[in-house]
Amino acid sequence: MAFDPVMTIGLIAASLTTGGIMPQVIKAHTTRQTKDISLAMWVMSALGVALWVVYGVLLNVLPVIIANSVTLCLMLYIVYLKVKYG
Amino acid sequence: MAFDPVMTIGLIAASLTTGGIMPQVIKAHTTRQTKDISLAMWVMSALGVALWVVYGVLLNVLPVIIANSVTLCLMLYIVYLKVKYG
Repeated sequence: MAFDPVMTIGLIAASLTTGGIMPQVIKAHTTRQTKDISLAMWVMSALGVALWVVYGVLLNVLPVIIANSVTLCLMLYIVYLKVKYG
Repeated sequence: MAFDPVMTIGLIAASLTTGGIMPQVIKAHTTRQTKDISLAMWVMSALGVALWVVYGVLLNVLPVIIANSVTLCLMLYIVYLKVKYG
């Protein structure tokens, strides 16, 4: 498979935007402090990402489906922690 | 222009994932409280979104460029607030 610089940039971008949520998940999970986190942000973003999954399914683009499904799970966990700890 | 349900879902998804950051921006800006926010998350995400802008430029996809440029500005402002308020 030939090296595709554009695809590579897309993969790094997707890894950063999906993986970037992990530090927040770990922080909220370990500190149990979520006061400064916006519930509205995470609910809206989770809805948006859920629609990206639908978009990926309709266009049958597996990377979009996988990356956004992982992101959705992480976001829903943050929503859960926020609702739990306030 | 014919109604395109897949495109419509993509547009709503993009609006939610980009616009979803606004509540966090407003919350951090008005409360000046950012203790529970993960700096690592916003730096990683901003880097990822910057690469999505590059990706959009290389593929010449204007919606990707515009949506991610707006998102990048909002994310950098949250990084600024986090560094300022700790």
